[in-house]
Amino acid sequence: MPANRRIVLASRPTEQAELGHFRMEDAPTPAVGAGQVLVRNRFLSLDPYMRGRMSDRKSYAAPQPVDQVMIGETAGEVLESRHDNFRPGDSVVGFLGWQLFGVADGKALRKVDATRIPLSAYLGVAGMPGVTAWYGLKHIITPKTGETVAVSAASGAVGSVVGQLAKQGGCRAIGIAGGADKCRYVTEELGFDACIDYKSQKISDELKTLAPQGVDGYFENVGGDVLNGVLPHMNAFGRIALCGLIAGYDGVPIPIRTPQFFLSSRLKLQGFIVSEHLDVWPTALAELRELVAAGRLKYRETIAEGLDSAPQAFLGLLKGRNFGKQLVRLS
Amino acid sequence: MPANRRIVLASRPTEQAELGHFRMEDAPTPAVGAGQVLVRNRFLSLDPYMRGRMSDRKSYAAPQPVDQVMIGETAGEVLESRHDNFRPGDSVVGFLGWQLFGVADGKALRKVDATRIPLSAYLGVAGMPGVTAWYGLKHIITPKTGETVAVSAASGAVGSVVGQLAKQGGCRAIGIAGGADKCRYVTEELGFDACIDYKSQKISDELKTLAPQGVDGYFENVGGDVLNGVLPHMNAFGRIALCGLIAGYDGVPIPIRTPQFFLSSRLKLQGFIVSEHLDVWPTALAELRELVAAGRLKYRETIAEGLDSAPQAFLGLLKGRNFGKQLVRLS
Repeated sequence: MPANRRIVLASRPTEQAELGHFRMEDAPTPAVGAGQVLVRNRFLSLDPYMRGRMSDRKSYAAPQPVDQVMIGETAGEVLESRHDNFRPGDSVVGFLGWQLFGVADGKALRKVDATRIPLSAYLGVAGMPGVTAWYGLKHIITPKTGETVAVSAASGAVGSVVGQLAKQGGCRAIGIAGGADKCRYVTEELGFDACIDYKSQKISDELKTLAPQGVDGYFENVGGDVLNGVLPHMNAFGRIALCGLIAGYDGVPIPIRTPQFFLSSRLKLQGFIVSEHLDVWPTALAELRELVAAGRLKYRETIAEGLDSAPQAFLGLLKGRNFGKQLVRLS
Repeated sequence: MPANRRIVLASRPTEQAELGHFRMEDAPTPAVGAGQVLVRNRFLSLDPYMRGRMSDRKSYAAPQPVDQVMIGETAGEVLESRHDNFRPGDSVVGFLGWQLFGVADGKALRKVDATRIPLSAYLGVAGMPGVTAWYGLKHIITPKTGETVAVSAASGAVGSVVGQLAKQGGCRAIGIAGGADKCRYVTEELGFDACIDYKSQKISDELKTLAPQGVDGYFENVGGDVLNGVLPHMNAFGRIALCGLIAGYDGVPIPIRTPQFFLSSRLKLQGFIVSEHLDVWPTALAELRELVAAGRLKYRETIAEGLDSAPQAFLGLLKGRNFGKQLVRLS
């Protein structure tokens, strides 16, 4: 078996996560059991949910165990298979973690076609982040033609898909992102109608101008002051799909300051975890893949080179330093 | 026409409402136009929403105009009718405001049967508060048999109905109320399984004991620290019907301190205004009236005597001084 390297959780952060909470180590690659597959990981996906797993507070998922390989979705290539559905050379996506090689049950892997669209896209626009956008928009926000949909972290893996799908559905799309570069990308490349730079602009003031008719649907990835800025602009019967609260992940939660708008505007707020809606995945994945292949769904990646760069890249992600989907190239 | 007395909004409160924001005045009773009905008001309903109307901040309803009669639902008796559906002596419910007599279009009045249940009940358990409870429970919380439903202001006009309907649906009902007397009433008279006294007990601590399996549905009338106390105990996929935030009405809004639970527990929060769901009213009203007539839905009233007692009674309502439905007997 090939020699493996991996990154484990060394200790749990109580406030901000730091490099010292991770540890790289050499480890043997386990043997391939019956029904299992050995994969060489090519790309590791870094995602905000990982910060939640590093803590042990009550959540929808069990905490990441200390001294175990960090959880993470990967795309790679089958080296050895003891499962009928997979052969060496197949491209697969699965949760093999922050490591160079992994062994998984075949039923936990998804075969993908890396000739139709690039392998890395299956970790972003045509993978979990894409399905997250698809589900929150189509099943919670359920926008009607002509409505206004806003989304935070708009240049990111999820947000960029939300806005593009909203536009394709005949909505007006307003992004919120950090920095002039990201905002320019959101409007000029992704085709959103407008983008607010939360670092230099006041969200609430900008929405007065950019959404004078109010916001009907809001896809929330950030929380904190961004959510507090959007809430007063939600229209009656507005829908908020709550996908992430990254502003509060790395430290103390940030309150919702004006809950009265939920009542006065009769809003619906719904938190969701896309992995609990597996029934929509096949439809969503196929739709997203074809949109990417047809050039109708654009995306951008920030790729860190090498497993050892993963912790730093992850900490940067929590601070919004990535631009588009954050990946690590493992081999 | 009979000489009328009425209470108008004298000025808008910026923080706490006070007696000086109201003014009593004599006024002529308007003539009865075509299609209109003259009503002698017997009971005036006092409700938390009135505090919102006294301000002019953005809301679902236009503000109460200054120098105009305060908005309010009333139950009374027809004195004169120029509408085919009504005759002198009929019992009616309508929004005739804080005054002794009122003239309204017949189509804005609802005829009620004051021989089947007491007239005043049509302003509470078998009226708007009852339908509010019915709608929020059945259309937003949608509880399943065996689930746990919590409700704040549990001894009040809305909360008392929520818990009793939840029990009838096979749920466990936990009330939250202010004071030992109210809590005793909630459990011993209304039949809730438990009641937390938010004035002397810590909601979050009590829920650990009273709802060790967590809370599936929460009907919120209060907000503030009560909501903050319940949120951490909501089960995955819990539903919160947001009916009122009375804790923040009279002054500054109280933040939601831990929004992360909406995400980690995949909660749905939905604000609603019962007057926007008129389609359910006939069904709900009939069901509630029959439950009251059969003695299966208990209720309690606090009745202030005379129009001039209305402002003081209203301010007491905002501080939770009423016990059950707050009414004013006008004649």
